[in-house]
Amino acid sequence: MMRTHEAGSLRTGHAGQSVTLSGWVARRRDHGGVIFIDLRDASGVAQVVFREGEMAERAHRLRAEFCIRITGEVVRRPAGNENPEIGTGEVEITVTDLEVLSESAPLPFPLDEHLETSEEVRLRYRYLDLRRPGPARTIRMRSEVNRIARQVLHDREFIEVETPTMTRSTPEGARDFLIPARLQPGSWYALPQSPQLFKQLLMVGGLERYFQIARCYRDEDFRADRQPEFTQLDLEMSFVDQEDVIEVSEQVITSLWRELADHEIERPISRISYADAMARYGTDKPDLRFGVELTELTDYFRDTPFRVFQAPYVGAVVMPGGADQPRRQLDAWQEWAKQRGAKGLAYVLVGEDGTLSGPVAKNLSDSERDGLAKTVSASPGDCVFFAAGPRSSSRALLGAVRLEIADHCGLVDQHAWSFVWVVDAPMFESVADTDDVTVGSSRWTAVHHPFTAPNPEWADSFDQDPENAIASAYDLVCNGNEIGGGSVRIHRPEMQERVFDVLGISEEQAKDKFGFLLEAFKYGPPPHGGVAFGWDRICMLLADADSLREVIAFPKSGGGFDPLTGAPAPITAEQRKEAGVDAKPAAGPADSISVEPQGMVEKQG
Amino acid sequence: MMRTHEAGSLRTGHAGQSVTLSGWVARRRDHGGVIFIDLRDASGVAQVVFREGEMAERAHRLRAEFCIRITGEVVRRPAGNENPEIGTGEVEITVTDLEVLSESAPLPFPLDEHLETSEEVRLRYRYLDLRRPGPARTIRMRSEVNRIARQVLHDREFIEVETPTMTRSTPEGARDFLIPARLQPGSWYALPQSPQLFKQLLMVGGLERYFQIARCYRDEDFRADRQPEFTQLDLEMSFVDQEDVIEVSEQVITSLWRELADHEIERPISRISYADAMARYGTDKPDLRFGVELTELTDYFRDTPFRVFQAPYVGAVVMPGGADQPRRQLDAWQEWAKQRGAKGLAYVLVGEDGTLSGPVAKNLSDSERDGLAKTVSASPGDCVFFAAGPRSSSRALLGAVRLEIADHCGLVDQHAWSFVWVVDAPMFESVADTDDVTVGSSRWTAVHHPFTAPNPEWADSFDQDPENAIASAYDLVCNGNEIGGGSVRIHRPEMQERVFDVLGISEEQAKDKFGFLLEAFKYGPPPHGGVAFGWDRICMLLADADSLREVIAFPKSGGGFDPLTGAPAPITAEQRKEAGVDAKPAAGPADSISVEPQGMVEKQG
Repeated sequence: MMRTHEAGSLRTGHAGQSVTLSGWVARRRDHGGVIFIDLRDASGVAQVVFREGEMAERAHRLRAEFCIRITGEVVRRPAGNENPEIGTGEVEITVTDLEVLSESAPLPFPLDEHLETSEEVRLRYRYLDLRRPGPARTIRMRSEVNRIARQVLHDREFIEVETPTMTRSTPEGARDFLIPARLQPGSWYALPQSPQLFKQLLMVGGLERYFQIARCYRDEDFRADRQPEFTQLDLEMSFVDQEDVIEVSEQVITSLWRELADHEIERPISRISYADAMARYGTDKPDLRFGVELTELTDYFRDTPFRVFQAPYVGAVVMPGGADQPRRQLDAWQEWAKQRGAKGLAYVLVGEDGTLSGPVAKNLSDSERDGLAKTVSASPGDCVFFAAGPRSSSRALLGAVRLEIADHCGLVDQHAWSFVWVVDAPMFESVADTDDVTVGSSRWTAVHHPFTAPNPEWADSFDQDPENAIASAYDLVCNGNEIGGGSVRIHRPEMQERVFDVLGISEEQAKDKFGFLLEAFKYGPPPHGGVAFGWDRICMLLADADSLREVIAFPKSGGGFDPLTGAPAPITAEQRKEAGVDAKPAAGPADSISVEPQGMVEKQG
Repeated sequence: MMRTHEAGSLRTGHAGQSVTLSGWVARRRDHGGVIFIDLRDASGVAQVVFREGEMAERAHRLRAEFCIRITGEVVRRPAGNENPEIGTGEVEITVTDLEVLSESAPLPFPLDEHLETSEEVRLRYRYLDLRRPGPARTIRMRSEVNRIARQVLHDREFIEVETPTMTRSTPEGARDFLIPARLQPGSWYALPQSPQLFKQLLMVGGLERYFQIARCYRDEDFRADRQPEFTQLDLEMSFVDQEDVIEVSEQVITSLWRELADHEIERPISRISYADAMARYGTDKPDLRFGVELTELTDYFRDTPFRVFQAPYVGAVVMPGGADQPRRQLDAWQEWAKQRGAKGLAYVLVGEDGTLSGPVAKNLSDSERDGLAKTVSASPGDCVFFAAGPRSSSRALLGAVRLEIADHCGLVDQHAWSFVWVVDAPMFESVADTDDVTVGSSRWTAVHHPFTAPNPEWADSFDQDPENAIASAYDLVCNGNEIGGGSVRIHRPEMQERVFDVLGISEEQAKDKFGFLLEAFKYGPPPHGGVAFGWDRICMLLADADSLREVIAFPKSGGGFDPLTGAPAPITAEQRKEAGVDAKPAAGPADSISVEPQGMVEKQG
């Protein structure tokens, strides 16, 4: 019998009972000949007392994080010695027997709630880090996130399906992780960027409601807070439209926030069109915990004498009370903008009497000066920041300024939750505007992926006006983080062909790139759509954590390195030889079978 | 609105209602001008009727597996036309509107319950295969298997943790799948053979109760029914002994069989020692649905004149009624044994009068002949098969004969469930007796893995008598299939050192091979143990399926090939270059950080 009770479960009702506990020495205090130890197990902490004599003698050798088993009697603590901060604070255990289960070397860092140690060291000793209250809570919470989401989906008769993680690479995809196939030397598997293709195949297979908490892989340059492997909650449904997918999504998300953040999300979650989000917040993932909207001034400055504002787009955002920033601060804004790749950040300061100052002001016409504050809703004492230039980069700059303003001015309520669906995204964007690897040869690329259906109103006309065509796609944003996204898929061959036409994908290319999915779509595919949630990010938000690494049990640090195991690492020559890494593939790739396009996965995480 | 009802939900209570259904054309029958169609969706099938006139006209173009939406009125079927075999058999829907959602090309095979098509073709069109009743049922059942197991474990406060799948390779491990690390050219990740190391680290981390339905990877030569990626239910617990792990395991397994096989497993599940299982059944995974035990005759033939039986082991197994097998059949047994690598299969036939015949009989002494039938419990008309030679291979041969006998004689009740724990496995086996890659340099290797603890009775003496030392390890066997296995782990450094001594692993080798786990074990590791269940195999048994491929949504076929996607496949030169496949690693491997040994994972699947 390793223990009769869990340490954290003891209450005054146990007084008089003999108990056996197992756990770790969390804290030790010597008072005269008496030794007090906080014994910690997964359930909590209990105070165990080694009174004078043999027990105290034996307890002298106990050090932090020794793993021990004790037997003793539960007694009420002496009056005045209670600790109301812990559940076991009214009792202690007078030890009559002690066994050291294992000893601990001196710790590389103290296991306190707040820690100064570098993250690299914490991750190298992640097993010690996980004994700390915060990380332990976070990992436990993540387990609950999974449980709650699955419960919602099982109740709605979703079927959990495990899809393969050793699958086929894309021809152009420098971004897949690859695995040499020892039994087919010269051929490689790839780790999937998402289950996208397989979930669509499951819909063709008649499953109707699929979900999976799926491991996904993306070989990206490791920007801050990216992991080579990440998790998404992946859903797909047949015989549905956008509203059905949104409805299920909201049920999952509201259940999570209700049970884990004690927050009731108002339903339906409000929506904003992609166009509105870009115009008012300069981003497709607006943080709506505060206002500070962008004002477009292109028209206002139509006849401006100021060269800088003679641009395809001029917009502004107001910093409340920003007029009294010292010069140094205003210079810092310029520096900040330049680091983002902008030329600078034009501004005017609105004086207490309403007059405008700052370098831009004198370049404006009288009438422009007179009406500006009112047009941008600036008050005396505010600072107005401008961006002028191409519409998309200028809005992005103002959107970033907006976040900085909120930060500087403390406009963000850290306890607020703001959810919004960004809907009516464009189907296509100009190839010039994307960093993604593109699939076709036209000037258009798919914003979501080439299988995303147009909004029903655009079903007939999307290919006549690709610039303005709207997709049946939807992203869920929480506090400025994209936490989910999905779309209704195309299930009609003629519509798919027209999309390929817009993208400049020939029939041959389509067959080469998307062959097996197109083949499947020949056999009565149902209308279907789905969504994927960035599970790590959702856990991060629910745990109020600072990085994705906090919500992953054994995360990679920068560059995909695992400080704990030392992965990745060199392999032996024999491994290399046996894996068939250097074999030439058999002549000719299988040409009738095809593959996942780069831009085709639902991107989360 | 894609549908108002699910097809399989309609009953006479819906009569008179107008409904909209969406699904597939499963079967079509024309009666005069009236067309009957079985409309199938995930919920079931409903008969929809296109009466004469425009509707029948439009229905004429419907072909098998067209995806359609219909609106119509639910009516009772005419008396005599009911179909009691389906839930909707008392109603049909008179169609007033039809929309073809998508058409289907002619099918590569009919979507019937029983199918003659090759598995390769089925897997190539797996999305069509999944529309068949059997495969659809199986995939849905697997989702329930996950749900039920998780429910049991959540109720017992197990924490679900996702462990990494891009981790570190073993130095000697030709069996890991490898992934080149683009950002650390020359270094590689490996896919884990199990979460073994990580779950032990989680115990060091104080989690106490961990579980995961984990994807695992093993680069093996693809024997029949092996998959390169497979799933196990992985558990680990702290402050437990063998009985605790077995108790939780039984709760999971009994819940599954209760809910999915309508079978109440008797608890506690019976146990057999490894030694007993080998002696009586010639295997460590005995099928106990039938008897036919082995009889050891080594002692019986101690003074035999028959050269063949002058062997370290002689044993026999009896085939009831086997004496009347024709000569051809008896020759076939010889052939069968030779294909297994044996020299042949000695036998005697017991005549109706008790006299022995067959080529072996005349080589035996009179007294051997006289007592044999009684000693092996053979009756007149039986056949006695013998194996003589090394104990382990001879028993294995007899164990295989036993299964063949059961098959030939129809001794297996196909509806029976037989569960047994095989306990008290040896800690060590001779290196000569294993095919596994071994870790140390002694003549002993670990049967389970080098971290498996001895049975408490052997804690002090295992290293003095490695041949007989018993481990705290346990395997669960169902109908002759190993479906789970685990062990209590060593948590005391001095005990671990003694195990390494037996295995011939030096301190330096230990550090090199198991470094980071040993490092973790310096910091107060708790006593812990766990188990892993072969999830695919358990699903296969519950689904009464013939192969693991049937319970995997998108399985690989022979050689790890995926007939659907064509994976694995050649990669482009650019992918190869970018992945850093041919880069030389930076000088010197990180030498203080170590790695998973080959023999260390819990083997399931």
